[in-house]
Amino acid sequence: MQSRELKLARHPRGKVRSDDFALEVVTVPEELGPGDILVRNSWLSIDPSVRMRLGPTGPAGYLPPFRIGDTLAGLAVGEVIRSRANGFEPGDTVLHINGFRDFAVIREDGDTLAGAGGVTKLDTSEHPPQSYLGALGSSGLTAYVGLQCIGELTGGDVVWISSAAGAVGSLAAQIARLRGHYVVGSTGSAEKVRFLSEELGLDAAFDYHTPDLADALAGAAPDGIDLYFDNVGGTHLQAALYHLRRGGRVAMAGAVASYETEVTGPNNLFQIVAKNLTVKGFRAGAYDHLLGDMRAEVGSYLRDGRLVAAETVFDGLESAPDAIIAMLGGRTVGKTLCRLG
Amino acid sequence: MQSRELKLARHPRGKVRSDDFALEVVTVPEELGPGDILVRNSWLSIDPSVRMRLGPTGPAGYLPPFRIGDTLAGLAVGEVIRSRANGFEPGDTVLHINGFRDFAVIREDGDTLAGAGGVTKLDTSEHPPQSYLGALGSSGLTAYVGLQCIGELTGGDVVWISSAAGAVGSLAAQIARLRGHYVVGSTGSAEKVRFLSEELGLDAAFDYHTPDLADALAGAAPDGIDLYFDNVGGTHLQAALYHLRRGGRVAMAGAVASYETEVTGPNNLFQIVAKNLTVKGFRAGAYDHLLGDMRAEVGSYLRDGRLVAAETVFDGLESAPDAIIAMLGGRTVGKTLCRLG
Repeated sequence: MQSRELKLARHPRGKVRSDDFALEVVTVPEELGPGDILVRNSWLSIDPSVRMRLGPTGPAGYLPPFRIGDTLAGLAVGEVIRSRANGFEPGDTVLHINGFRDFAVIREDGDTLAGAGGVTKLDTSEHPPQSYLGALGSSGLTAYVGLQCIGELTGGDVVWISSAAGAVGSLAAQIARLRGHYVVGSTGSAEKVRFLSEELGLDAAFDYHTPDLADALAGAAPDGIDLYFDNVGGTHLQAALYHLRRGGRVAMAGAVASYETEVTGPNNLFQIVAKNLTVKGFRAGAYDHLLGDMRAEVGSYLRDGRLVAAETVFDGLESAPDAIIAMLGGRTVGKTLCRLG
Repeated sequence: MQSRELKLARHPRGKVRSDDFALEVVTVPEELGPGDILVRNSWLSIDPSVRMRLGPTGPAGYLPPFRIGDTLAGLAVGEVIRSRANGFEPGDTVLHINGFRDFAVIREDGDTLAGAGGVTKLDTSEHPPQSYLGALGSSGLTAYVGLQCIGELTGGDVVWISSAAGAVGSLAAQIARLRGHYVVGSTGSAEKVRFLSEELGLDAAFDYHTPDLADALAGAAPDGIDLYFDNVGGTHLQAALYHLRRGGRVAMAGAVASYETEVTGPNNLFQIVAKNLTVKGFRAGAYDHLLGDMRAEVGSYLRDGRLVAAETVFDGLESAPDAIIAMLGGRTVGKTLCRLG
């Protein structure tokens, strides 16, 4: 059987280009080995963090970069076609990390998985399968953990969320708002500012393309902020440090400003000393045990129609490079997905 | 009665110069008001943080800068000469923050004190008075709180302390060592490296004047560090972020690299995300309630002769500018003090 896989053709220099990737036809073996599952992928998660694995070098402590010729990996949802693994039947919907290909042969013991993970059966009776990549998946978990465990969100906190129209930011902003907090969101276009104010109902929103980010933040939250949920880093983090109140916190979920170009850090880190601030970074992968708690809360918001699970959908594996480029360029809203088949 | 006071003559541009200050003769009133205490200062604490108050602007959230013509303020120990305050008698030794003058008139309600503080009677039967500015004072409290509360020092932690020959660093390094940790110290000269290794008994020490700070750190702690006690910021913090192990912590006590010149922040803050790091800043003033705990531990080390309370002493109020300049230039060891009278 023939399948297509997206491979790394070249390490990008600066901004990613579509010819950094190559779509290759491969043959999927007809015979499965013991423990193998053949999955037809239906949804691919397109996440900013993929940029850090396009190399040639990646940040220390993170998943290693792909080599030239490697098939990309990433979270995906698919349908089991054939199975020689206990507990998996044809027709099951599964979550796994062998994305960026039409068909994937997955071993249930997870030894072919690039990075942490495995294969999980999903109950799609209540929520659509792709929600397990977004609001009920790693984006939702990142938002939930960042607010709850890392940011230690406390009654009365004023919260600023950067990249607030993105997959994680839009969820963090809405969870904080639904819990009754004053929430400021920032994003990269007038259209997305309207999305934050009108569709997500945030208390204040601004475009970060402004001469002075700290001024824009001060306008949106005149009495300062208690928690900054950082998806961006760089000048965004610098503005937050100026504007955080004494004892304030930064939950660092990502630093997208530094994924494509080297950025210098804030010049005002002494604010951390002066105001007894805490800056804490995290990756949601270390908090899988909270997936149930997150799904209980976010799932109820979704059922009640109180949370907008925005998606930007690209069609076909051949569109995955465009999806990556558009997402890194800030031209997508909510969860960026690639729909296959 | 005549006294001398050190006043700010000019806001320094870049590095502090002695003519940024002026020594002025003032008349101390013969008659004390109710609640007043007249103190003859005997020891002045010379701390890096004074640099941030020499203005013209200082960091947000910190004590306000001095204005031109202001008498500098800072922690000092002195002897009560006359008192109209209950509980204070001539001959008492007191700690207060009206330093940088020969004589100080202090109101016991503390309303003339620039910043937090007041006036505290000291028991000098066991330890010399100036130790309440250093090992048993704010330097000791900063070291203790940074390790204990901010850095959450845990059994087996490998600790790096920058500015380890300084007032705070030398105490933090020794407390961590006496608690059984592997301690790496960095400092700014070969002589001070010898001081760290031979007199303080640290496990490893290096001069930060090296082509690659991260390499030097890796040489001193080949398996990485768990806690970085940061007195410096800038490139030191950057090296620490590379070299911290997963779940590592940074206790930011100061950022002396940025006090005289603007420094850009580390370019690798994504390490905080990648390795689930926590960076926490603090000022010891918020932890006065732990002064007793700190004095119990550090006092016992001092009594047993297990802790070196190194001092660099300048003589006379007229030497205070030189003391400030030498300390900021890294040419002092241990606690920098100015002895009066």
